[in-house]
Amino acid sequence: MDKLTVIKVGGKIVEEESSLNDLLQKFSKIEGNKVLVHGGGRSATALASQLGIESKMVDGRRVTDEQMLKVVTMVYAGLVNKNIVARLQALNVNALGLTGADLNYMLSDKRPVKTVDYGFVGDVKEVNSDLLADLIQKGVVPVLAPLTHDKKGHLLNTNADTIAGEAAKALSKHFEVTLIYCFEKKGVLSDPENEDSVIRNIDHSQFVKLVEESVIKEGMIPKLENSFAAIQAGVKQVIITRADQLGEDSGTVIR
Amino acid sequence: MDKLTVIKVGGKIVEEESSLNDLLQKFSKIEGNKVLVHGGGRSATALASQLGIESKMVDGRRVTDEQMLKVVTMVYAGLVNKNIVARLQALNVNALGLTGADLNYMLSDKRPVKTVDYGFVGDVKEVNSDLLADLIQKGVVPVLAPLTHDKKGHLLNTNADTIAGEAAKALSKHFEVTLIYCFEKKGVLSDPENEDSVIRNIDHSQFVKLVEESVIKEGMIPKLENSFAAIQAGVKQVIITRADQLGEDSGTVIR
Repeated sequence: MDKLTVIKVGGKIVEEESSLNDLLQKFSKIEGNKVLVHGGGRSATALASQLGIESKMVDGRRVTDEQMLKVVTMVYAGLVNKNIVARLQALNVNALGLTGADLNYMLSDKRPVKTVDYGFVGDVKEVNSDLLADLIQKGVVPVLAPLTHDKKGHLLNTNADTIAGEAAKALSKHFEVTLIYCFEKKGVLSDPENEDSVIRNIDHSQFVKLVEESVIKEGMIPKLENSFAAIQAGVKQVIITRADQLGEDSGTVIR
Repeated sequence: MDKLTVIKVGGKIVEEESSLNDLLQKFSKIEGNKVLVHGGGRSATALASQLGIESKMVDGRRVTDEQMLKVVTMVYAGLVNKNIVARLQALNVNALGLTGADLNYMLSDKRPVKTVDYGFVGDVKEVNSDLLADLIQKGVVPVLAPLTHDKKGHLLNTNADTIAGEAAKALSKHFEVTLIYCFEKKGVLSDPENEDSVIRNIDHSQFVKLVEESVIKEGMIPKLENSFAAIQAGVKQVIITRADQLGEDSGTVIR
């Protein structure tokens, strides 16, 4: 089975000129099959604000009404995605920018209203990876924007971590997948104050123990739970690292 | 050789809810391989205006400075393109939205400054149609936004008629191509005041004669010149018609 690296980078990295350049340089040098998944929340908030649209967040998730859906469609699928694609082409990476509607590759259901109405936000229900895998085998590098669709004509805003996880799981049918989450820390830290305290390897029993000991807490818990779920679903390994360390032997490896 | 229909529709049609629905319904019913090329100028002008950016046009062409390039990238590649893609998916058309940067399928040179500096506007220099043709053969329907790239990291604004013509020419290597330009009239008219005076068939010698007689004039002349150039370059036929007549045996046929 061929190898494939799926890399998720947050909005902050792709929205600033210097970090974007650095990221794309590093990404272009990664050998073999690869996929890039990006965010873009800061640019969406900035454009919304310029248009007099208020950004509402609940538990770190964007409430996406009709106006905001237009904004995120313009920013994620247009500005951020196509800028990355054009720059990767300049680095001889044959990039292809996609939302979940393109090639019908990722379908979702509009999130049901419980205590919060998130609006046009989608929970992934189906990934069609055959055409995607075929393109990857031909040397194409998909660049995935954080949008899915409901196959009823609506785009839906979907968290980029989720897109990366779901794409990685589905592509595990075709490839031996390494999923890399880039975030602001060098990895899972045993001491949150010390960037050099990266836990290099972690399995599920160690994870449970470290949560009990409160070494791993808060936002890192769902990140790791998602990582173990990806492993469970066939992803070979998940790496949590910092974007500027891409391509180095670094970060926390989850198997 | 398989047949392929390349259809270009202007911004006005895809930017209004009722005409867009009608267009996509008709488009979805066209049998066999197909490609849709769209504009989006009115939405770009509207967004620019909301953002306090002035739209400058010279001879009907948009002057595209850095700010305007961001606007057209958001509107053409994001809002308009992905809205069409999601709606086509709902009609069971396996659409894939593309700019020229995606799959490196259409490269252009930034237009040199002569009397006018058009800014980030591209003149097409190369079309890579192999991957596109392969996708079409697999049942994918490309939806082309009016943007190309220079392979140096820049997207460039490119006229949608030009995109349609260049894509049709390049795809003639792989398919027997019919290129359909939808515009506001039913076809080339022998009497501009009479919508029922459509000239059903025209070849190059008739065209020359009708220009001499001033039956064909103004904006229709470059449209037809481009059509004959497409025929010259291998396109089987070009049809000039009105969008609401798509799928009917109507309009002016150029062979």
